[in-house]
Amino acid sequence: MTDKRIVGIGLVGYGYWGPNLARNFSRRRDCRLVQICDRSTTRAELARQHYPNTSVTTEYEDLLNDPAVDAIIVATPVDAHFHLASQALDAGKDVLVEKPLTSTIAEAEALVALARRRGRILAVDHTFLFTGAVLRMRELVAAGELGDIIYMDSVRVNLGLFQHDVNVIWDLAPHDLSIFQYVCGTRPVAVRAMGHRTHSDLHESVAYVHLEYGGAAVAHCHVNWVSPVKLRLSMIAGTRKMIVFDDMEHSEKIKVYDKGISVRDIDRDTYNQVRVDYRTGDMWAPKLGMREALDLEAEEFIASVRDRHQPRVDGEFGLDIVRQLAACQRSIELGGERVEIA
Amino acid sequence: MTDKRIVGIGLVGYGYWGPNLARNFSRRRDCRLVQICDRSTTRAELARQHYPNTSVTTEYEDLLNDPAVDAIIVATPVDAHFHLASQALDAGKDVLVEKPLTSTIAEAEALVALARRRGRILAVDHTFLFTGAVLRMRELVAAGELGDIIYMDSVRVNLGLFQHDVNVIWDLAPHDLSIFQYVCGTRPVAVRAMGHRTHSDLHESVAYVHLEYGGAAVAHCHVNWVSPVKLRLSMIAGTRKMIVFDDMEHSEKIKVYDKGISVRDIDRDTYNQVRVDYRTGDMWAPKLGMREALDLEAEEFIASVRDRHQPRVDGEFGLDIVRQLAACQRSIELGGERVEIA
Amino acid sequence: MTDKRIVGIGLVGYGYWGPNLARNFSRRRDCRLVQICDRSTTRAELARQHYPNTSVTTEYEDLLNDPAVDAIIVATPVDAHFHLASQALDAGKDVLVEKPLTSTIAEAEALVALARRRGRILAVDHTFLFTGAVLRMRELVAAGELGDIIYMDSVRVNLGLFQHDVNVIWDLAPHDLSIFQYVCGTRPVAVRAMGHRTHSDLHESVAYVHLEYGGAAVAHCHVNWVSPVKLRLSMIAGTRKMIVFDDMEHSEKIKVYDKGISVRDIDRDTYNQVRVDYRTGDMWAPKLGMREALDLEAEEFIASVRDRHQPRVDGEFGLDIVRQLAACQRSIELGGERVEIA
Amino acid sequence: MTDKRIVGIGLVGYGYWGPNLARNFSRRRDCRLVQICDRSTTRAELARQHYPNTSVTTEYEDLLNDPAVDAIIVATPVDAHFHLASQALDAGKDVLVEKPLTSTIAEAEALVALARRRGRILAVDHTFLFTGAVLRMRELVAAGELGDIIYMDSVRVNLGLFQHDVNVIWDLAPHDLSIFQYVCGTRPVAVRAMGHRTHSDLHESVAYVHLEYGGAAVAHCHVNWVSPVKLRLSMIAGTRKMIVFDDMEHSEKIKVYDKGISVRDIDRDTYNQVRVDYRTGDMWAPKLGMREALDLEAEEFIASVRDRHQPRVDGEFGLDIVRQLAACQRSIELGGERVEIA
Repeated sequence: MTDKRIVGIGLVGYGYWGPNLARNFSRRRDCRLVQICDRSTTRAELARQHYPNTSVTTEYEDLLNDPAVDAIIVATPVDAHFHLASQALDAGKDVLVEKPLTSTIAEAEALVALARRRGRILAVDHTFLFTGAVLRMRELVAAGELGDIIYMDSVRVNLGLFQHDVNVIWDLAPHDLSIFQYVCGTRPVAVRAMGHRTHSDLHESVAYVHLEYGGAAVAHCHVNWVSPVKLRLSMIAGTRKMIVFDDMEHSEKIKVYDKGISVRDIDRDTYNQVRVDYRTGDMWAPKLGMREALDLEAEEFIASVRDRHQPRVDGEFGLDIVRQLAACQRSIELGGERVEIA
Repeated sequence: MTDKRIVGIGLVGYGYWGPNLARNFSRRRDCRLVQICDRSTTRAELARQHYPNTSVTTEYEDLLNDPAVDAIIVATPVDAHFHLASQALDAGKDVLVEKPLTSTIAEAEALVALARRRGRILAVDHTFLFTGAVLRMRELVAAGELGDIIYMDSVRVNLGLFQHDVNVIWDLAPHDLSIFQYVCGTRPVAVRAMGHRTHSDLHESVAYVHLEYGGAAVAHCHVNWVSPVKLRLSMIAGTRKMIVFDDMEHSEKIKVYDKGISVRDIDRDTYNQVRVDYRTGDMWAPKLGMREALDLEAEEFIASVRDRHQPRVDGEFGLDIVRQLAACQRSIELGGERVEIA
Repeated sequence: MTDKRIVGIGLVGYGYWGPNLARNFSRRRDCRLVQICDRSTTRAELARQHYPNTSVTTEYEDLLNDPAVDAIIVATPVDAHFHLASQALDAGKDVLVEKPLTSTIAEAEALVALARRRGRILAVDHTFLFTGAVLRMRELVAAGELGDIIYMDSVRVNLGLFQHDVNVIWDLAPHDLSIFQYVCGTRPVAVRAMGHRTHSDLHESVAYVHLEYGGAAVAHCHVNWVSPVKLRLSMIAGTRKMIVFDDMEHSEKIKVYDKGISVRDIDRDTYNQVRVDYRTGDMWAPKLGMREALDLEAEEFIASVRDRHQPRVDGEFGLDIVRQLAACQRSIELGGERVEIA
Repeated sequence: MTDKRIVGIGLVGYGYWGPNLARNFSRRRDCRLVQICDRSTTRAELARQHYPNTSVTTEYEDLLNDPAVDAIIVATPVDAHFHLASQALDAGKDVLVEKPLTSTIAEAEALVALARRRGRILAVDHTFLFTGAVLRMRELVAAGELGDIIYMDSVRVNLGLFQHDVNVIWDLAPHDLSIFQYVCGTRPVAVRAMGHRTHSDLHESVAYVHLEYGGAAVAHCHVNWVSPVKLRLSMIAGTRKMIVFDDMEHSEKIKVYDKGISVRDIDRDTYNQVRVDYRTGDMWAPKLGMREALDLEAEEFIASVRDRHQPRVDGEFGLDIVRQLAACQRSIELGGERVEIA
């Protein structure tokens, strides 16, 4: 690695998530956190305290114009993503954008096209796709351990934090949608979403999303900012085995159940039940990689930048998720009507 | 109570649920389990072993014609409910019908009308409405402890038992729909339901139901026969407090959270968040009555029969639930279209 | 099995546990519940209601003299065990005695000797040794899956039920002591026990038992009638793997952890830690037999009676546990002094 | 606070716990982290990276001689505590020492005497005594909510981290002993401790401690470095109410159970049970302060230093805990004999 250049990183946005990105990128040896930008002087001051050896600015131009900055990380509210990321690409920087990639399909498409045209790396920070749990689930599904997927279900609820710029779908569902797509490797074809404004002045804070895949599988997720308890519970059920992913567990986040059913000739004489055989075998909790997701994400992003290869979670992937979110949004506006995904 | 007559009970259907009803009614002193009917000779033989002092028959006529039978409990598959219950009412018997009351709205309406015309008691076995947990939740809501209800959510999933005559909605959702209506005292006005056949030869085994109440509240339930884990988790969220009802807990099934949010003038300068105040106070798990639900239900039914008063969970209530189920069924058939409830 | 005699069962004691035994033996086809005895007329009346086809008496002589009774089950308070069981053996009956076998070592030794002299079966109702969980743990240990056992630990606490005739050790510790001995196949050589009378008029209701095995392993159990929560949690740790047995879990009661440590040459330069390598692998919850323990126990007892073979959990085993309990009792009286086990 | 001096802090020991202390003291405005010392050049280098604006040294003399250092925090292995703390006191510094205060009673007594003689602050870092949970439990006990304490029980087990200089008692039991003493305000009078070396080359890694209080209460703790699961579960049972403190819970760490028993005249006729009334009421989980314990501890220590008042958790308290640990150690060496606490 000695012959490789140390990648210079600029970070724009030092609000809720930016500090986590800063922490992870700042402690790597293959990159250097060169400059942090936040237009709020309060946040900029905080960044200055945390990283006394890093330049801090309130002007995005400073990042764009800094030749020591090879790559820019965009960690602002979503409505600024397109503007900031496209400026960065235009300035010849590689870019890692906080999820969701943008707030419209058109913006996401434009960014993907721009990155391709400029020959720049465009990666999206779908952090869950760098956790040991999700990587293991994808392996299990890819290896056929689960058989055919029959449904996926996810519950992601807790109290707060209300976002001012987006509703709960744009805030939380990117996690579930990206996990569904990454683990199972298929795109939904249509969606219905029901959103509920629990407080009239605010965006939807409770929402249910139902996804069709054009075949045997469906998926559903419940995202909620107004729940008294915090739940992070997903199920991926296959014809052979089923996974429960409970992210609130300290250990054993993934449990693989050797459970299922098979249907025999239906015996009409049996009282009140069809002839369904239930198979219940062992449960197994595979050991998971314990590495911090952002650390692996940083490593992969830096490697993409150095080696000029497409990142694993790239602009195309981010665009897919934006298409799904936009369809959800449209469905909510239509009161739950079925919306096909572009 | 000495001057009161001992109520004679006939039970039709000794399959999955019938034995529980038999056990609870047989040990009471205010009634006597006079006769059990099951058309299956195997089940009839089993009933004979369990209750050597009770007559057992395979002919329903025997129950109808037995003058010692004052009231008939119908615990057969749902498609037989209407026929059996209407015969019983015509024979001058009071009737307790397993949930759901019938498989069509027309049948339920006819039963309610028939019972009124005949001056007979018509009760429905929505067992959950006799549990300590549901009774306590209703009290808390009625006392205004929760403030205004903003949403209800329920997850009722496990592996099996597939029913041969109905899908998962007709099997499991009566629990959630009856709890929602009883606890909050309001009827939904429209529904969307998405059902999924995980095994092509069988009825829908995974379903999601979304209920509108024409105002600020919504409700949602997930019912599922193909889940690797058993979950029985409901939330009722109000503007002041929120309840979590976890029926898988050995104790503390009901937890009341003094949690909520309030919205202040939105401060545009604050980075990335609206001015929402989160209120997090104590959690409280009220002591619940531990009495077996079916025992209370038996007591109330016998009291209705003796005193000729309308039961708490009567035909009208059962009809309401059938209307909701039928609307769900229609919505599933329409691929999730919104269906107004009759 | 057609040529085999149906075994006639007499049950003495219809208090807390007797009804469970009656239920399990009454529904078998290889035996018949011939007669139930309880000296309390109230309990006898209850037995009569539950089993209208079984003779019920308040005189133990009736059981002893009934030629249709081949085997007697003793389910009374422990201080009556010796008297009732020895009379039964003298009357030529086979005997199954509720745990613990007796309240003194001398009594247990006398029963074992008497059974041998009379050629009668003497079995002890250590019910846990018939559960799927304990049977599986014994298999895993016997197969060497855990490596060498390094310790066992058990917590068995809840609120109530206070016994009037014995302290918490004699009530609850037989479960843990029998599990330890059965799963690991070794007898402790010495014990220390600390008991605490939380209410001065009553027996010890909180106790801690520490067992030595004369080698590398130790065991400890905490038994408690005055705990706000119910816990049933055991750990069996080996050099290769470790088991956690949580009997409060609905499913996955047994979890096998591929965890352990190994010690390398201690590096004195390392700050604050020895060179211990922690091995953390998968967790695995084997499928367990779901059969009711008392049903298997009844089957095995009837088989012993018919085939005249020694039961798996016999008088000798019961005597071992009584020796351990008596040593605990002696240690408690000595304020926690070490007591060798006879 | 404007007129108050900013307290200069020196930290010795940048191993496992030191970085947490550094992080908490460094971000306060009422003190300044002036210098960090670790004799390991590797650890010193790490401190330098983390705190580029703080002097770092490998020579303790540098801290002692630095006039800008008002107070020294000792966060080294325990066998160095006495030497480092006494030098600091001799140099006129106030001192905060990691728990346990020292490895012998004589050393702890000498430190307390020295601090008094020099007029210096001597505080001990029993961190748990600064958590919202422990503060709340103490309030509840002090207010008489629990009635009289009847027992305390604690389980603190997990896999690792083996310490090279002390056994599991000196490593983990200071937490439980300090919580017991602080919450209940009483000192134990005698102890029995059973220790077990699961790996012959290492210190005891499993231990059970039984404490007597010379009256109605007892306490017990199980500390263990070789457990497959991590448990942090304490119970404090009173005659009126009982607390369960589960530190592994994300929220609701403290649960107060309105449970207990009362004894009536014993009815000899009742079968198999004494007349004990079980009282089971509500459960209540009070809201706890969420502040990081070390932040409160830092605030209190700085306040003591500035205002020259005795800290809440002072040398005397630390000495009490050392006396208990030394008695445990002696008891382990005697194979579990009862040892009175000095």
